[in-house]
Amino acid sequence: MTRRRASRPLQIGNVTIGGGAPVVVQSMTNTDTRDVAATVEQIRRLQECGCQIVRVAVPDIRAARAIAAIKRDIAVPLVADIHFDYRLALAALEAGADALRLNPGNIRQKAQVSSVVRAARERGTPIRIGVNAGSLPPGDDSQPVAQRMVEAALGHIRILEDQDFDLIKVSLKAFDVPTTVEAYRLMAEKVNYPFHLGITEAGPPRTGSIRSAVGLGILLYEGLGDTIRVSLTGDPCDEVTVGYEILKALGLREKGLTLISCPSCGRVEIDLVGLTQRVEERLMSMDRPLKVAVMGCVVNGPGEAREADVGIAGGRGKGILFRKGQVVKTLPEKDLFNALMAEVESLLTDQ
Amino acid sequence: MTRRRASRPLQIGNVTIGGGAPVVVQSMTNTDTRDVAATVEQIRRLQECGCQIVRVAVPDIRAARAIAAIKRDIAVPLVADIHFDYRLALAALEAGADALRLNPGNIRQKAQVSSVVRAARERGTPIRIGVNAGSLPPGDDSQPVAQRMVEAALGHIRILEDQDFDLIKVSLKAFDVPTTVEAYRLMAEKVNYPFHLGITEAGPPRTGSIRSAVGLGILLYEGLGDTIRVSLTGDPCDEVTVGYEILKALGLREKGLTLISCPSCGRVEIDLVGLTQRVEERLMSMDRPLKVAVMGCVVNGPGEAREADVGIAGGRGKGILFRKGQVVKTLPEKDLFNALMAEVESLLTDQ
Repeated sequence: MTRRRASRPLQIGNVTIGGGAPVVVQSMTNTDTRDVAATVEQIRRLQECGCQIVRVAVPDIRAARAIAAIKRDIAVPLVADIHFDYRLALAALEAGADALRLNPGNIRQKAQVSSVVRAARERGTPIRIGVNAGSLPPGDDSQPVAQRMVEAALGHIRILEDQDFDLIKVSLKAFDVPTTVEAYRLMAEKVNYPFHLGITEAGPPRTGSIRSAVGLGILLYEGLGDTIRVSLTGDPCDEVTVGYEILKALGLREKGLTLISCPSCGRVEIDLVGLTQRVEERLMSMDRPLKVAVMGCVVNGPGEAREADVGIAGGRGKGILFRKGQVVKTLPEKDLFNALMAEVESLLTDQ
Repeated sequence: MTRRRASRPLQIGNVTIGGGAPVVVQSMTNTDTRDVAATVEQIRRLQECGCQIVRVAVPDIRAARAIAAIKRDIAVPLVADIHFDYRLALAALEAGADALRLNPGNIRQKAQVSSVVRAARERGTPIRIGVNAGSLPPGDDSQPVAQRMVEAALGHIRILEDQDFDLIKVSLKAFDVPTTVEAYRLMAEKVNYPFHLGITEAGPPRTGSIRSAVGLGILLYEGLGDTIRVSLTGDPCDEVTVGYEILKALGLREKGLTLISCPSCGRVEIDLVGLTQRVEERLMSMDRPLKVAVMGCVVNGPGEAREADVGIAGGRGKGILFRKGQVVKTLPEKDLFNALMAEVESLLTDQ
């Protein structure tokens, strides 16, 4: 795995992005931001599932003002997503937003941009420049999309830098994975601002999580990316769960259950699928990192799942409980699940 | 994206692996191979969901002999998965297996290995050498696992090459993604045999598909990999679906629905999640490649989903139908779904 890119650290509320900090997982609400109660409730659910930064849409002035009330009842930093209208940016800053997502080049008047940048600088509030492949300014169509994305982002960055503003985070999102990868790679040669990674319009959870895992996985493996947002059409909590699974697959974060289980094959003599599902359901919301294995083969299982903290393997009515590749005891198949749960319990208590 | 590695082509039944052929998607049954009816039924379901090669476990001689009967009722090539026992390999070849998965180094006696290789050569039947991180031979523990995997595989390869056998395919699977990536990278410097990619014991569908997408995504993006098998504890058809989604995300295969849909945000005024789910359910089993978009914003939707063959975008009771970024017509929100389905229908008929 490539060493992580040395990005400049940025503070969003109490969360550090970049500069060697662990990769931060974020999401966005899909409630009406003006509905403070509904938005707070969703953000609290997001907090519970491990979301570290939350973004809200700010389509009008009432939404911008609602940020003040929302902030009172949540614990995570809040980012205001703003398009075109500088007054919404000013109102969101006034209301205490911890960061803005705003492309300054889309605000027509220079004086308006200046007033936003000044207000953000005074408060030390970062701005994410978020370029999407689908909404690029008109340009040279013969150029590759990735290059046009990078140039658009550099244009926005220059506007901020010209006003001595450098609390900047950058995202370059496309639906197409190779385009997204190429854009971040190019940008990594140009600036050292931290990167917010994402694949846009990735789709519903089933397919969108795979597309995001491919795209973000490639980038993170190359050492690029300081915070990620998985975009799914569905429950925002799914975005957070998928985000952590991507990071866990690369050893970049530890969180809750990591389930090692073999595909049930024609050699397996127990109900491996059912057993695995039960284990997953029971331990899914565990927060402490633990690697648990469910294997179909008593002979090879413990060895193959050597990296598991604890595991079970079954066959022909009997099964074993093992820890770190070593057999702890043999027991009847019907007792496997409970024995595993007891072992998990004791491991969590020991720690 | 890196150019695909130039691997030597290999014929498994009527399917070509490597040598520039499209990446092949395979899976493995989890039925008892001796139960011919159940195994044939599962393989037929796998064929229907697009699986191109199927592997079966061969734990004993009855399973090996069942291959002849299974082969009569299926259309895809069949691979026999064999461990240790050379008689099972001979019986599987005799029964007409299109390929073996077998690590010759695990067969103790040289004469036994020779008889298997001779029989495979006579029939032109390929052998996959499949090394798993969890079952490496004892060795130098101070060496990185990836290197030990590669050395184990090279040992198996040498045994085959020494007998002038080169119908070889190689896999190097670990649960750990960076280890897997490293192993294939190292092996790519050593041999030009085609690669079968996989992440072992990746877990149940929800998390296993993400781990596999990260691992296989990185490798495929680097140009490595000629066939893939996603290992999930669940329905083997899920392995195939996930496999295609990984390939589609990188533009390496086209198949069925590609759904572009934005995460519902606080700006969206229609039931985007519900609408997306309906579209996914209705078009999920479509085979012809088609990119369909479901967007929450009439103004930006068509532009952002420009790459969609057809799409809808809604807001405030009204919506639009668009094709390749161009608005086709405006209609009431309640008619959006049916209008989209009609348009899909006409597109599929036109083709």
